[in-house]
Order: sequence, then C-alpha cells, then structure tokens
Amino acid sequence: MPNKLDGARTLVARANRMIANEGVLDAFGHVTMRHPTDPGRFLMSRSRAPELVQPEDIHEFTLDSQIVKPIEARLYGERVIHGEIYKARPDVNAVCHHHAPSILPFCISGMELKPVYHLGATLGATVPFWDSRDDFGDTNLIVAKPEEGASLARALGQNWIVLMRRHGATVAGTTLEELTFRTIYTARNAAMQIHAHGLGHVSPLTKAETSLAGEYNLRPGPVARAWEYWSVRLDKVEGTWRGQKAKAAAPKKLKAKRKTKRRR
Amino acid sequence: MPNKLDGARTLVARANRMIANEGVLDAFGHVTMRHPTDPGRFLMSRSRAPELVQPEDIHEFTLDSQIVKPIEARLYGERVIHGEIYKARPDVNAVCHHHAPSILPFCISGMELKPVYHLGATLGATVPFWDSRDDFGDTNLIVAKPEEGASLARALGQNWIVLMRRHGATVAGTTLEELTFRTIYTARNAAMQIHAHGLGHVSPLTKAETSLAGEYNLRPGPVARAWEYWSVRLDKVEGTWRGQKAKAAAPKKLKAKRKTKRRR
Amino acid sequence: MPNKLDGARTLVARANRMIANEGVLDAFGHVTMRHPTDPGRFLMSRSRAPELVQPEDIHEFTLDSQIVKPIEARLYGERVIHGEIYKARPDVNAVCHHHAPSILPFCISGMELKPVYHLGATLGATVPFWDSRDDFGDTNLIVAKPEEGASLARALGQNWIVLMRRHGATVAGTTLEELTFRTIYTARNAAMQIHAHGLGHVSPLTKAETSLAGEYNLRPGPVARAWEYWSVRLDKVEGTWRGQKAKAAAPKKLKAKRKTKRRR
Amino acid sequence: MPNKLDGARTLVARANRMIANEGVLDAFGHVTMRHPTDPGRFLMSRSRAPELVQPEDIHEFTLDSQIVKPIEARLYGERVIHGEIYKARPDVNAVCHHHAPSILPFCISGMELKPVYHLGATLGATVPFWDSRDDFGDTNLIVAKPEEGASLARALGQNWIVLMRRHGATVAGTTLEELTFRTIYTARNAAMQIHAHGLGHVSPLTKAETSLAGEYNLRPGPVARAWEYWSVRLDKVEGTWRGQKAKAAAPKKLKAKRKTKRRR
Repeated sequence: MPNKLDGARTLVARANRMIANEGVLDAFGHVTMRHPTDPGRFLMSRSRAPELVQPEDIHEFTLDSQIVKPIEARLYGERVIHGEIYKARPDVNAVCHHHAPSILPFCISGMELKPVYHLGATLGATVPFWDSRDDFGDTNLIVAKPEEGASLARALGQNWIVLMRRHGATVAGTTLEELTFRTIYTARNAAMQIHAHGLGHVSPLTKAETSLAGEYNLRPGPVARAWEYWSVRLDKVEGTWRGQKAKAAAPKKLKAKRKTKRRR
Repeated sequence: MPNKLDGARTLVARANRMIANEGVLDAFGHVTMRHPTDPGRFLMSRSRAPELVQPEDIHEFTLDSQIVKPIEARLYGERVIHGEIYKARPDVNAVCHHHAPSILPFCISGMELKPVYHLGATLGATVPFWDSRDDFGDTNLIVAKPEEGASLARALGQNWIVLMRRHGATVAGTTLEELTFRTIYTARNAAMQIHAHGLGHVSPLTKAETSLAGEYNLRPGPVARAWEYWSVRLDKVEGTWRGQKAKAAAPKKLKAKRKTKRRR
Repeated sequence: MPNKLDGARTLVARANRMIANEGVLDAFGHVTMRHPTDPGRFLMSRSRAPELVQPEDIHEFTLDSQIVKPIEARLYGERVIHGEIYKARPDVNAVCHHHAPSILPFCISGMELKPVYHLGATLGATVPFWDSRDDFGDTNLIVAKPEEGASLARALGQNWIVLMRRHGATVAGTTLEELTFRTIYTARNAAMQIHAHGLGHVSPLTKAETSLAGEYNLRPGPVARAWEYWSVRLDKVEGTWRGQKAKAAAPKKLKAKRKTKRRR
Repeated sequence: MPNKLDGARTLVARANRMIANEGVLDAFGHVTMRHPTDPGRFLMSRSRAPELVQPEDIHEFTLDSQIVKPIEARLYGERVIHGEIYKARPDVNAVCHHHAPSILPFCISGMELKPVYHLGATLGATVPFWDSRDDFGDTNLIVAKPEEGASLARALGQNWIVLMRRHGATVAGTTLEELTFRTIYTARNAAMQIHAHGLGHVSPLTKAETSLAGEYNLRPGPVARAWEYWSVRLDKVEGTWRGQKAKAAAPKKLKAKRKTKRRR
C-alpha cells in the first residue's frame, strides 16, 4: 500500500517540524512512527534537525534499528531508542526523543515531574527516571547500542514518558497525534511546575484526576484540535498558510472521527 | 439586526485570535460574548483553537449552553463556564477561559494573585480560587456539567477573575474590549509577581489604589489604545497589516467615544 | 527650520517603535524628545501604543505639557512626566516612560537595581525609587498632575533612571539615541540581575567601573552601532528591510561622528 | 587563494548572523576566525552588530590586532580578545565574544558553570573565571589593550570558554563550525542550569562523561547537522529560505565528511 506509506511519511515529517516549531526540539532529537501496515518496522528521518525534515527524508527501519534500504546519507545514532521501545511495547506506535529546555531541569536536578494541570495529565501517574550510569557507568550519554536502548525501554516500562538523567526525555504514544499532544503538553506542564516551585508549593493532580483528565484529553477531538493549531502555526512560519481561508490540516483519520457527538 | 450580529461575530473571532497571539491562549481555551441584542444568548466558536477562529465559526448559544441551530461540527465541552456566568451575572457581557503559562503557577501553588502594578489593577481587589475537588471530588477537571459551571460562577461571585486549581482561569468583562484588556494584563501582572517573589518581596497595590487604577484603565481611551495595539500585532502575524498606512483596527463603538477630552 | 523638525518627528516615532519592538514598551508607555531648535518645547505622540507611532502622530508641547496646536485626537494622560523632567533638567533631551517586564519586579519588590555588567552601567551609580504614596497617598498611580510630575522629577534628581513603585520606570538621556540605548540595556541588565539573584549572589560593578563603563558605552560609536541594530530589526518586522543590501539606518548625525578613530 | 578567503569571509559573516539569530549575541559581541591560509592573521568584521555583518564587512587583522589594510569605518575596540587568543593558542581557529542573557548570571553571581547535559559537554571540564579587577583594578571593563587581552588568554589557558566577571564570555573552537556549536549549546546549558538550580539541585556530568560526550558531539556529523539547522533558521528570518526545496546550507567541507559511516 504505497499511498498509506506515503501519507505516513508526510505525517511523521510534519510532526517533526511541528514539535520543533513549538520549541520542544532543536537541532537534535527525533520523532518516529511505526510503519502503518508492517508492525515490524518503523519510520524515521535520516540524520537532520527535526525542523527541516521532509517526507523524502523518511526511511524504513527494522525493530533492530537497521535501515531496510541502505542510503548514502548519515543516520541518527540513537535509533535504538525507538527500535527497542517499539519492540517492547506493541501498543506504542509513535516515539519522540527530545531535550526540551523546560524538561531538562528535572533531568538535571532529579526533581520529580508531576501532572500539575489537566493538559499535563497525559504524562501519566508516574514518570520514571533512567540514568545511563546505573547500567553502563561513564558514557558519552548517547543511547546508541541495542542494550542501552533496551535498558531505557525497561525503565519506561508501561509508562508514557521517561526522563533521562543529564540528557533529555523519551515520550511514547499510541498514535502520532497523541504523541505530539503528549510531547508538547508535558513540556508546558514542566515549565509551569518550575514556576509553581518558585512560588513555594506544588500541588499536583491526584492519581484519579490524572487518569480521568489524561483519558479525556487524548480523545480524538482534543487531539485533532491541538494538531490543527500546531499545524497552522507551522504553516505560518513556513509561508504555506493560506490565511483566513486555510482549511484544517488535521489528518483525515482524525477528521472522520469528528462525527461523534462528545466534545470539548 | 443581522448587521449588528455579524459585527459581533467578527469581533469575538478577532478577540480569540488577539489573545492567542499574545500567548495567553494556546490550542485550548475560548473567548465569548453575550449576543449584542438578545441578552439570553451568547456567541461562541465551534471547537477549535482560538488562534484559528473565524467569524463563520461563531454560533449562538442559549444561557443553558445549548446551541440554537445545531451543526455537524464539534462544540467546546466547557460551554457551561460561559453560560452559567452569563446567567448569574447580567453585568457580564464577555468571558474568557484560559490556561496562561504565567497564571497556572498560582493555580498550582495556591499563591494569591495580587495587583502588583496599575495595569494589573483590573483584576480587582480579590481573586477567588475555585477547586473542583470541593464540590465534585476527583474529576477530569473539565467544567462540562451545568452544576459544575454554576459552582464556578458562584466562586467568581461579584469578582472579575477566578483561578481554577490545577486548571486555569476564567475572566469576565462588561464588554469584549474590557475583557481582552483584563485577560492580557492580568497575565502580565502574574508574570511580574512571580519574578518579584523571586526577588524576595511582593508589595501589592492597596485596595484604594486597585479600585482607582482599575477604574482609570478601563475607561474607553486606554481600552481602545490597547485593542488597537494587539489588533495591529495580529495583523502583522496574519499578513494583513498594511504597514505605515494601517488605520486603527479599534471597533467603531470605541472610536466614537474618543471625542471625550479626558485622556491618557 | 521645518526640515530639522520633520527629521526629529521621524526619529522620535522610530524610537517609540524600536523600543517597543525590543519588548520594553507594550500598549502603554511613551518616548519623547526635546524640540530640536526650541528648548522650551518637546515632541510627543498623540495617545497610541508606541509600536504604532508614526511621524504624523508627533506633536509639539510646552514644558507645562500643553499641546501647542490643539487636536481632536486623544493625548497621553502622563504628559507631565516628560514636561516636568525637561523643565528640571536642561541637560536632558529625551525621556522614556515604560513598564518593562524585567524592571517591574524591582518596582514591586523594592529590590535595588544595580549595574551588573558593562552595558548596564548606563543606569548610573544610583537608581532612586519614587513612591506616589509618599506625597499623594492612594491614587490611581497615574502621574497626570503637574505636582505629581514635579515630584517624580525631584526623585530623579541628577540621575538617569527612576523606578516608580508598583508602576514602572522613567529614563532620561542627553540625546534620543543615548536614551534608547539606556532604556533597552537597563531592561536587559535587570533581567540578568533577577537570574543572578536566583543563583544566590549579585556582585555589581564598583562606582568607578560604573562611571567608566557608562561613559565608554555612551560614546557615539557604540550608541550608533546599537541604534542601527534595533533599527534593522524593526525594519525586518515591518517588512521594510531590504535584505543584504540594507544600508545602516543610523541617524546622519551619528554617522558623521564615525570618522573619529576611537572604536569598540 | 582569493576564493578560499572569500569563502571564509562569507562563512564568518554567516556565523555572526546565525549566533545572533539564536539570541546569544545582540548589538555587541563578535565572531572571528583565523585566516584560512595565513595562520598569522584573523578575519573580523568592522564594528557593527553581529546580526548585520555581511562578507564585505570582514577584514584581515594581524595577531597584534592591527588591521592589515586600514579602512575609514570604525573597528571593534575589543580586537585583542581575539588576537591574543590566536597568538596563545595555535589550535584555536575561531573565537566568539558575547554577553548572552543565560551566561551573564554566572558572570554576576560567580556561580560555577557546569556541563549539565550531553550537548553542554562541549564547554569542557573546567570553565575558568577572569576578573579584570585582578590585574587592572577599576576599568571600563572593555578588553582593549594588548596586556588585557593577554591576561584573558592566560585565564582561558587550555580550556574552551572563559567567563568574564560582570562582562560576558569568550569561547574558542578548532573550527568555525565547532565554535558555533559550542557557543550556542553552552548558552543553552547555562539556562538549564539556572532552572535546575531553582529546583534545588544541580547534578553535572562526571569528568569522564564530559570528555566522552564533548568529543562525540564535536564530530563532523553533529556539528554539520546543527549548522544546517541554524543556517536555515537564519534564512527564514532573512527571507532567503526557499521553503521545502531548500538544500542544506552546511559548508562544503563538512558535507564532504558525511560519507563516513559513524552517525548520530
């Protein structure tokens, strides 16, 4: 099904640029998704800054993080972050690895990241830490070997985001759209927690609130609404926005679901 | 009076985009106004990010938060925030619900938000907190049921802004222009209070100063000046700014009032 | 000399837009300069946001803050801030009143603003505080009456910037270009002091360093270099930048002085 | 070899604009590189804000910081920062002096700047402080005399970045691309350290991690990837971006090295 694959390549390239445009990714980091028809593969860009990734940069990789059709261009060194998570978590269909300015202070200080408002509830009740020192001692901090990726995937466990000490975060989602939502709103949540900490007290959501609000916000409606927003903002920056006549840039799959009556 | 309604739809769509363009709203939140000729109705967008709202997205709702002419598209889930406040407060003609980055640290920490400079005086002497837990226990934090909206409206009382624990804020105004002013300047005031707190001491306005400065800044002159500013900034981003020949984008009602001689 | 006046109106309008474009001014605040040939008058915009001010908005005022040729449009309410300082300080030829986000935390907390790096040395050895409560008790905080302006001018004394409690700052300069430099770099200095305070310790310049660095940075060379920078940045935002062929936008008076050999 | 020199002038002008576009440089500061064929000379702009520097602004200087072919235009006053470092460090081929908002709080507070994530590891294990007071007492803080530049170069020693108390930072690199990477990522690292400090604890990289991660990130692949990113971002702002068809703006030398198989 070449059309389905082409659509996926366009979407994953766009998600890279959207998340970068929101300040969560910079020259480094990457967004991938599982192959739309072959669960034993995933789609990832060749090595370049996420803000620049185009559909033609997206290639297929096995779950052992090997490229299916070798190319001349450089590949990302941290492919195993993605491959090992797809291997360990059949429910995960999209992964983002990043070094967001609001998340790093937690990775540096060891302060627990907590859901502090409903939109941050998508980070889940528990955000585990992973420290490369525990299993591997002094390294260059890059997660490049299969065993390093597997160790990180174990730390992630059944959660949706794992903080990597002195390095960054890795986020997972059941869909690319959900992943985009979780990645951006957990970064926003982190910034708010930092400032609340500065005011002297952090009062997070309860476990039940986290579960209920997380579930609510990840329904197709809110996720499509946020996707359209970030997509139009990207179009404005890239000069492809058609102004007040611009149509929603939400993926078709999501648009179809809008016929349901529950709303937000 | 279809023309008056059309004008109102254009204005409320523009207010959504202006407040979003100033960083107070993102993918979520909403700005509404009471129907210009029928006080038993209010105008609200279909569900989409405020930065994208166009006049044709604006529909009429009853004060029970039901759409007057049902449509296919999704509606906001938190319509009752607006409907219940319009019901409880006949003096309120515009409402904004948001999750501004500078306001949330107060909602998370429980720190009192205070007027710390004259432009923030529009938040009034008292900013009440509302906690969904008090009346409803663990929820998804979304204010979707009529009784939840009514509870929030009671917490707002006769004030102009209410902070919602672990969620955001809801702001009210006697006009759409006043609401826009209060929404943006209370967010600016909050950011300044956070940094003043970091310097070790917060010395707010007295009650008398708050009342006098609030009243001064909400006169038609300052409100129109600020509206023109945010409107031109929006035009620059949307590519509709005509450069140095651009005329003021202030609503006509406000322009007319400029003939008075008191000024700022 | 109509040409000299026209040139001054263009420059003071541009300074309003440049300082706003750097985030120091928003919907409120104002930049003025003394009349280029009549020291008993000063040039100020009609009431509108500084980012929007055009040469045709600039009018002449007496030092009693009365407009020379009355107009229909609204005037700023705080004209006396400027008039009273020009009256008290014959060496001052330009004034800016603002509410910069980095300066307000000092006005709210009472923390002393100090020169913490060479470019901030232009704030001088002493930054006095003025509190409207001292002379006038509870007010709307607006400096609108001649006696209020005179009180503020006395607090400024022979200094170059005065902090106004719970309100903002007023900055003075011997030229418009110097004023622009001091206004922007004292705001930058304030932001750095806030973060240094957060790191636990603020070590300011000595009095001698402040004096030497202030004098050095206010020579024509550095001042023209900074003016050209902010001017091109404004041109980029306003769509009037001619790209890599753009010529320096520095005022001619400054360009002429560039022939001196001392440099930076 | 006029072509090689022309290419170098284009690159060093571009590096000035790129680093400014990322918020590390403002009206002041400068980026230079050693002459590509004559190690006894270096290339530096005439005095103007880095964001505005064009290839034709770049001139040749001796290691005694004298211009080879005198010009009418003003020169930077702090040329000796560059000349004395090139003299003392034959391995250094590019230097940047700046006053980044995230770095200054360290220069003001005396807090040690440490590598807190892998991309900040390029600052090295030790970041020395230099205080102009130690050797020269009260000055205008400008490093303008040869002995001042030499003192700073001694403080830098064999490290890659030196913090200048109450002034800024000077960064060195073996290539212009490496310098650009180190300059921007050490500023990002500093911002993260400030926020981690606010959360209560800073846990830096070990010496071994710093060495390994620094080495990894300065390989041609990551350096070229970051250069392309900042270059495209500059093109977007300057209006020279050709949209989705834009080709990588990485310098040819770096592109050539991409054929190696190690990647990131």
